[in-house]
Amino acid sequence: MSAEPVRTDNGADDEPDETRLQRWEQRTEWPMIALSVLFFAGYAWIVLQPGMDRGTRSTLDVGMWLVWAAFAADYLIRLALSRRRGRFVLRNLFDLVTIVVPILRQLRVLRLVMVLVLINRRLQARVRGQVVAYVSGATVLVGVSAALAVLEVERDQPDAMITTFADALWWTMTTITTVGYGDYSPVSSEGKLIATGLMLAGIALLGVVTGSIASWFVEKFGGMEESEKESRQADAVRAEELRGEVADLKAEITALREQLVGSRTDDSRV
Amino acid sequence: MSAEPVRTDNGADDEPDETRLQRWEQRTEWPMIALSVLFFAGYAWIVLQPGMDRGTRSTLDVGMWLVWAAFAADYLIRLALSRRRGRFVLRNLFDLVTIVVPILRQLRVLRLVMVLVLINRRLQARVRGQVVAYVSGATVLVGVSAALAVLEVERDQPDAMITTFADALWWTMTTITTVGYGDYSPVSSEGKLIATGLMLAGIALLGVVTGSIASWFVEKFGGMEESEKESRQADAVRAEELRGEVADLKAEITALREQLVGSRTDDSRV
Amino acid sequence: MSAEPVRTDNGADDEPDETRLQRWEQRTEWPMIALSVLFFAGYAWIVLQPGMDRGTRSTLDVGMWLVWAAFAADYLIRLALSRRRGRFVLRNLFDLVTIVVPILRQLRVLRLVMVLVLINRRLQARVRGQVVAYVSGATVLVGVSAALAVLEVERDQPDAMITTFADALWWTMTTITTVGYGDYSPVSSEGKLIATGLMLAGIALLGVVTGSIASWFVEKFGGMEESEKESRQADAVRAEELRGEVADLKAEITALREQLVGSRTDDSRV
Amino acid sequence: MSAEPVRTDNGADDEPDETRLQRWEQRTEWPMIALSVLFFAGYAWIVLQPGMDRGTRSTLDVGMWLVWAAFAADYLIRLALSRRRGRFVLRNLFDLVTIVVPILRQLRVLRLVMVLVLINRRLQARVRGQVVAYVSGATVLVGVSAALAVLEVERDQPDAMITTFADALWWTMTTITTVGYGDYSPVSSEGKLIATGLMLAGIALLGVVTGSIASWFVEKFGGMEESEKESRQADAVRAEELRGEVADLKAEITALREQLVGSRTDDSRV
Repeated sequence: MSAEPVRTDNGADDEPDETRLQRWEQRTEWPMIALSVLFFAGYAWIVLQPGMDRGTRSTLDVGMWLVWAAFAADYLIRLALSRRRGRFVLRNLFDLVTIVVPILRQLRVLRLVMVLVLINRRLQARVRGQVVAYVSGATVLVGVSAALAVLEVERDQPDAMITTFADALWWTMTTITTVGYGDYSPVSSEGKLIATGLMLAGIALLGVVTGSIASWFVEKFGGMEESEKESRQADAVRAEELRGEVADLKAEITALREQLVGSRTDDSRV
Repeated sequence: MSAEPVRTDNGADDEPDETRLQRWEQRTEWPMIALSVLFFAGYAWIVLQPGMDRGTRSTLDVGMWLVWAAFAADYLIRLALSRRRGRFVLRNLFDLVTIVVPILRQLRVLRLVMVLVLINRRLQARVRGQVVAYVSGATVLVGVSAALAVLEVERDQPDAMITTFADALWWTMTTITTVGYGDYSPVSSEGKLIATGLMLAGIALLGVVTGSIASWFVEKFGGMEESEKESRQADAVRAEELRGEVADLKAEITALREQLVGSRTDDSRV
Repeated sequence: MSAEPVRTDNGADDEPDETRLQRWEQRTEWPMIALSVLFFAGYAWIVLQPGMDRGTRSTLDVGMWLVWAAFAADYLIRLALSRRRGRFVLRNLFDLVTIVVPILRQLRVLRLVMVLVLINRRLQARVRGQVVAYVSGATVLVGVSAALAVLEVERDQPDAMITTFADALWWTMTTITTVGYGDYSPVSSEGKLIATGLMLAGIALLGVVTGSIASWFVEKFGGMEESEKESRQADAVRAEELRGEVADLKAEITALREQLVGSRTDDSRV
Repeated sequence: MSAEPVRTDNGADDEPDETRLQRWEQRTEWPMIALSVLFFAGYAWIVLQPGMDRGTRSTLDVGMWLVWAAFAADYLIRLALSRRRGRFVLRNLFDLVTIVVPILRQLRVLRLVMVLVLINRRLQARVRGQVVAYVSGATVLVGVSAALAVLEVERDQPDAMITTFADALWWTMTTITTVGYGDYSPVSSEGKLIATGLMLAGIALLGVVTGSIASWFVEKFGGMEESEKESRQADAVRAEELRGEVADLKAEITALREQLVGSRTDDSRV
């Protein structure tokens, strides 16, 4: 907005110019999404084919760590490109979490948060339909991720109920819709942690479904009452009438002036 | 809308005239609904009387396939009547699904999607009450269909919990309201697939109930605040006053003109 | 609205005068509510003290039938007072149900629908707080009624889970909030019928809670956007300025007239 | 507001000056919050370390009663400072409950209501984000309190399912989201009472989540329809045009006056 000619490079000015950061983010957007999808596919493969040979497993593990490294590098580059680094860290806390969490060995299963980067990237919806489509996609992604993750941590538990991917998907459905039959439920702490996330996603899903329907209802039937609309139309009619009267007034003044000119001509002729 | 005199019959023009298609759809609307109801009744009969004699069962099966054939023929005729076929297929994907799914032997139970044609047909509600009535009807239809379908696929399972229609209805209620006691739940994959659909219907139902109540609340108590209403009334009063002043102005100018006329008369008399 | 002097007493005119009916309803409102409360108290007593002696039980039964008779009489009197009877029956279907249902011996437990008359009577809320208070009250009433009714029908079942009033209340809570642990659930058909009603009440309750919060949010933070408010204020400012200009105009015309008078005076002096 | 010079100290005037009360409440706000947090920490310590030695336990118990005494004293002082004591009691019923309940020995676990003072204190949100943050905080506080309380009352029950804090937290999650698997549920009356409160909190939570999303949707996509916005803009355009015409009128009248002056000058020159 400001047009000052010289700009020093330290991050201290009030409205820093973040075009370098934005250019980088635009250029890397699709590659990063592709990497997320690769990561998700690798994770799904590891979980769904537990008896895979050592070589394939090692390759996949290395591949996933490479994706993680790419994410970490992207984060550091963006941090370096940013002019106000404190604000960058605060505004991208979620990205930081997705980088730091996979390092923690205890929370191995939470590597999957990297998939959420897919969701976090692209929320710039302009139409209700877009938001609904976006949320549906995100819900499917979260659901499948949760099913994979819960299967990974549960199937080796001695008293596990969830031992196949079909079980895991069914459990995901009963949980995310808040039905909760209880015929399948996680028994390990890690499984319960995943379930907690899924329940919160379920509540958010319910909220979005309800909210979008409610806003559709309000738009279509409510909010602005019938009487209200009529009063608005009456306002418009009144304004139109007022304008007509002002136009009349103008015409009358013009006539008056012409009369006056005529009167002067008469006078001068006298 | 356009009134060009000659119109070629290929589907390449931008605003094709779909009156032929619309006429066909109007004329076949009620017959198709009647066929859907017949199909539903046949399906219900087959499920609710499992020990029926072979002859009746065969007759019903043939009848249901005839209904399916009528639906398929209707779809093909509509496709033929349409001028932009690609768009027709895209806009009627749901109809295509209801035609193709029953052919798949594995998904036998999903023949019931044909019933959903009943729901898909007629959503042109203009009042909130109509939407609520429509959704209530659709929910009952989906619920009864799900109960029938789950009963059909579950009752022959070795460890089935749902073995009577009463069980199936009760399970449907606990699922669609998202209560989910878990005293009854499906054990077969097909049953779980049906349950998934029912849970999604339950979430949508919750959304519509909540949304319609919320919009009623917003219309009655919220949205437009009290202060807002007052400011609107003040606007109206101001406009009224303005109009009064313009009227005064007009009267004054008229008086002015009369004075001027008088002045000229005086002048000319001089 | 119409002011015709003579009015025949048949129900055939278009806008019948229902003042007689309204007077009756106003006069009997509180007595009928008192009777409903008595009925509820009697029902609760019967259910909560199952081992009561025969005499008390008979007295209570007779008392409850008397209340029923009073309701039936009230309905018939209102029907007789109404000028358009067909419309009266249609508009008061709920009342008819509460009169007819208790006669059916099989649906003995549904006598309790008479309590719902309490709820049906008085919905003329003007403020959101009133609606919320009303719905809270209705929910408590429905919940306690359901707990009593389910206890009555379940406790004699061989495999019943709900055998004490505390169990019944707890089950009611888990059901109406749609939590549905399933540690207690009805096993008899009648119990499941009651549960179905309770689940629907739960969904409605959720809808009202959510709806009222949503409308409060919309009123407080949304609906009318900030930019919208500013544009309204700009409108007001513009209208005010317009008025100022019209006032200027008026002053100018007055000045003009005075000049003109002066000019005429000058002329006449010439 | 009123500026009368002398004011008697009895509480009988209509608009009493509650500045003394307000000053006290402002001054004690943070100390009281700190005490609430201390109370909560003490309670959590007692519950989470059941095998603590007698001395520590006694110290904690004494400390918690001291906090209670501070709350009671604060209440009495505020009552004394208030000018209209009846109204003060009515408006602070919740505070009274938090003072009285802990005295009842039977409802020992309900001492925890004192924690709710934390929530009750500070609801003056101005932005939707603040309300959401507040509700999230309150939900976490209620959830952790419920987990602690249910653990305290359940773990000594013979057939208890909830015996560790992890169990209690997991149960809290399944309850507050209304999922309700039923793998863990309270068996004691006190536990069920706590669960009831938690379910109600869950419904309120759902309501707030849904409500805030709905109001965001309404603000962003609905409420004010597109056609409505256009009609508003048309209004603004009309008003602008009207103003333009009034300005023209003014210019014309000025011209008229100058002509008139000119005409008079001409006349006088004649």
